[in-house]
Amino acid sequence: MVRLPTVVIIGAGNLAYHLALNIHQSQVKLLQVYNRSRRGLSKIKKNTGVETSSSLNKLNRGADIYIIAVSDDAIRETASAITHLISKDAIIAHTSGSVSIDVLNNLRAELCYGAFYPLQSFKKERDIDLRKVPIFLSSHQPKTLKQLSVVAREISDKVVIIPDEERSKLHIPAVYVNNFVNHMYTIASDYCTKENLQIDHLYPLMKETLERIFDNNKPQDMQTGPAIRGDKATIRNHKKLLKDHPDQLPLYHYLTKAITRYYDENN
Amino acid sequence: MVRLPTVVIIGAGNLAYHLALNIHQSQVKLLQVYNRSRRGLSKIKKNTGVETSSSLNKLNRGADIYIIAVSDDAIRETASAITHLISKDAIIAHTSGSVSIDVLNNLRAELCYGAFYPLQSFKKERDIDLRKVPIFLSSHQPKTLKQLSVVAREISDKVVIIPDEERSKLHIPAVYVNNFVNHMYTIASDYCTKENLQIDHLYPLMKETLERIFDNNKPQDMQTGPAIRGDKATIRNHKKLLKDHPDQLPLYHYLTKAITRYYDENN
Repeated sequence: MVRLPTVVIIGAGNLAYHLALNIHQSQVKLLQVYNRSRRGLSKIKKNTGVETSSSLNKLNRGADIYIIAVSDDAIRETASAITHLISKDAIIAHTSGSVSIDVLNNLRAELCYGAFYPLQSFKKERDIDLRKVPIFLSSHQPKTLKQLSVVAREISDKVVIIPDEERSKLHIPAVYVNNFVNHMYTIASDYCTKENLQIDHLYPLMKETLERIFDNNKPQDMQTGPAIRGDKATIRNHKKLLKDHPDQLPLYHYLTKAITRYYDENN
Repeated sequence: MVRLPTVVIIGAGNLAYHLALNIHQSQVKLLQVYNRSRRGLSKIKKNTGVETSSSLNKLNRGADIYIIAVSDDAIRETASAITHLISKDAIIAHTSGSVSIDVLNNLRAELCYGAFYPLQSFKKERDIDLRKVPIFLSSHQPKTLKQLSVVAREISDKVVIIPDEERSKLHIPAVYVNNFVNHMYTIASDYCTKENLQIDHLYPLMKETLERIFDNNKPQDMQTGPAIRGDKATIRNHKKLLKDHPDQLPLYHYLTKAITRYYDENN
């Protein structure tokens, strides 16, 4: 039986928290969660029982893999602080979709490094089972990729090896379907609150909008509504109603035009 | 036992089709589906066995309720063509979220009229069980509302009586969570196609984005990503990558700014 790599997680934010929970529940041994401040560590300790530390002196130096789950702009600094402490063969992997793995290059001679990127949006208050979440791995070193794969497969059924430059490309449609979609939900929710309408009246519509795509329909073929119909009377009526919501009017106008233009150009 | 009202559906588009299927499967007697052209009628006949007609002479004049499921701008003309044919006590209801029921006023003395609006996006190729879809009813006449309610409750568990002017307000957040969201899926899908990425890698993220809301989280509290974080490096990187997708760059820029501004103003 192959010995599973041991892991230390660096960071205590949303992603670090969920990685800690999921790795702790797997066969992989999570040795420690380290963060430069105490913030976030107690919740991780409470929910996993794993040792935590905010003192660099106490960093566990014996792990096979150090997963750096910190904000993009802190990756290099964090990695730089630990590289001289850990063993020569240890792997450092960051969890960013956007940042090239090259940010970890040249920190030390012959460093094993890569990316370990679960494509999901994490909030501490939401339990996430990573089993169905794709984890994208990048590294220039086959041996590093292999070790990262072993850990990734223990927590996810969808492990994908992807060239470094493709991983950051994946982050763009992720922004579209999560960040931008959630903002649509936000303005819908604000509108309903102000107009005393129940947002849950919209739930079946929201569900259908998504399930169509899961049922292998192309979203292009599923577009409905006044913009694609060129229904100017309805658009005019909506804009009139949105005079009570002046903050929403520009966005309504912009996206209506974007949809109209899209189908003008693609039909 | 109260006799259930009998129904004729006018129209043969997406909504007419699904209404015909759902009413046909209920206890309500669907007498006929009429459309001014043959288009769409054969599919309805095939799937329900209900009599169809495209000849106004053959319109069934004996129904209690005529549901006009035609495009917004054809409602008045369609209603006008049938009002002098149907019985004095019959009800005419249109299915539009946006159009006032007053479009049906003054067509004839003492006409019973209202709206029968299922809040959902319909495509013929997608089966829709209306049971969970809210149906909004509007009428100035209590007797009309009562009759429409009887039919609506036979096909849906969520029947809501709503003042005429509120129904059209509901259509705006429906545009946000369906039309606009589907456009986000569309550009994500286009991006993935062009970059040879698998769209289904995004499915767990799309699912989580929606389920958070169903679990009673406010979308405002669920926003993640570079825009709300003010992560300029990632946004810059995305814009660089989007130079290969010049059609998507303006929309990325616009929505990123919209999100940034939203949280600047609301925090």
